[in-house]
Amino acid sequence: MSSDTEAESWAECLDVAVRTALRAGQMVRVSVMQEKRVSSKSTPTDLVTEADQHVEELIISTLREKFPSHRFIGEESSAAGEKCVLTDNPTWIIDPIDGTCNFVHSFPMVAVSIGFAVKKQLEFGVIYHCFDGTLYTGRRGHGAFCNGVRLHVSKEKDVSKALILTEIGAKRDPLTLDVFLGNMKQLLSTPVHGVRIIGSSTLALCQVASGAAEAYYQYGLHCWDIAAAALIITEAGGCVIDTTGGPLDLMSRRVVAAGSQEIADYIVQQLKPISYGRDDDDP
Amino acid sequence: MSSDTEAESWAECLDVAVRTALRAGQMVRVSVMQEKRVSSKSTPTDLVTEADQHVEELIISTLREKFPSHRFIGEESSAAGEKCVLTDNPTWIIDPIDGTCNFVHSFPMVAVSIGFAVKKQLEFGVIYHCFDGTLYTGRRGHGAFCNGVRLHVSKEKDVSKALILTEIGAKRDPLTLDVFLGNMKQLLSTPVHGVRIIGSSTLALCQVASGAAEAYYQYGLHCWDIAAAALIITEAGGCVIDTTGGPLDLMSRRVVAAGSQEIADYIVQQLKPISYGRDDDDP
Repeated sequence: MSSDTEAESWAECLDVAVRTALRAGQMVRVSVMQEKRVSSKSTPTDLVTEADQHVEELIISTLREKFPSHRFIGEESSAAGEKCVLTDNPTWIIDPIDGTCNFVHSFPMVAVSIGFAVKKQLEFGVIYHCFDGTLYTGRRGHGAFCNGVRLHVSKEKDVSKALILTEIGAKRDPLTLDVFLGNMKQLLSTPVHGVRIIGSSTLALCQVASGAAEAYYQYGLHCWDIAAAALIITEAGGCVIDTTGGPLDLMSRRVVAAGSQEIADYIVQQLKPISYGRDDDDP
Repeated sequence: MSSDTEAESWAECLDVAVRTALRAGQMVRVSVMQEKRVSSKSTPTDLVTEADQHVEELIISTLREKFPSHRFIGEESSAAGEKCVLTDNPTWIIDPIDGTCNFVHSFPMVAVSIGFAVKKQLEFGVIYHCFDGTLYTGRRGHGAFCNGVRLHVSKEKDVSKALILTEIGAKRDPLTLDVFLGNMKQLLSTPVHGVRIIGSSTLALCQVASGAAEAYYQYGLHCWDIAAAALIITEAGGCVIDTTGGPLDLMSRRVVAAGSQEIADYIVQQLKPISYGRDDDDP
């Protein structure tokens, strides 16, 4: 395939991704009104519902029918034991319900996230806020958008004027909590304007893309939380890096994202690490 | 005035409060698009903008014209030195922009809050989410509503299944942060399902009223953060108490709100106090 045809073809994939995210979001909205069967995965607070599985099945079956040669990495398929390895093949990276704990409580911060990578490079991302219907999209080299309006990150460089988001992660042992809360204390003591925890990594990252927050950091998230959002933030002019300051490693379960390099660097310097292993470790 | 006529009259006040909150919310939505002049009040992270002052002026002037004999307690009037004392007179308790830090960043969690008390008893509350247009109302003895739909708190009694919200407060000295983060650790170790920090006390409290979160606690909020929401939660079937377990004291700058008494009691037992003084202390 020539690279022109290839690019054209990814544009078609993006269109299908958007339509699929909207359908999946509709399914989430219906499911949130129904009784939820909740169980847990890696820890008692790492929740999953039947809806997570059904929505992922809907997304993957829709995409597989259109693109039978593509590969799929999905939160629930991985939980069921499928290998989570990024190859050079066109690969869809899917979180059917980001913010499952919020979903369980009907707390209105829940998203469908669909990222797409080729030769290990992210080509586009689609994130659909199921409750308020906001659609975030980004395509490599073509910008990032929220409901069709171009997104720009905050260019603030002064961290004392920053609003910073994070998420708690599934591990709640005392040592992990001490590091997590120590990192929060470090930033609150700077002092930054504020720290927010909304319960959805992807929607938090979308706030960075839209300039409503200066930064996001987390240990313990997964490639399906970060894939679509990383592309959207980059296309909105921001930077998405590893917590050590190096390039983002999608499988590393850690990230710092910010509007400006200065604020990203500051956060990198403050953070003490929490080890969560890698997404592509053998289970 | 007979008590029937009085009740009728408060119903008229509620109608005016709703119309005023909608107008104020419209002003907030316009202001958020404009450049903001930000300054600070009690601490470098206790922010205020010209919009806070203008929106409060709009609300108080509208209400004073209709109800010239009533008293007013407003966040910005208090910051400007007006006494913050609740008497037996009909009193409006107003937060023009709850979530000022969010407002400064255009982070979409900002509300107008209008509470109304007579003989120190809350009669109704109105909270308007300026970004998504959700309107929460409650009137004593008449229930609580979100966009006209009756609200019911979560009846969950098992705190390990609870989603709990809190806010950081303006004080960021190391001792205050240690107690704040220690309280968070205590709850995360329970473990509860999750802890969220969204940057607007009133909207967080509305999540308790709607059953999307089991509880909220905070040290350092003000009477204008809690007045409207306390009535709305109570009318949705929840409990709103002091952090010591006693009855709510509107001026005490501390609160525990929950869907069930069991979860409220559990949180009360876990919390270590943070002292913020009282709203009705002499400045």
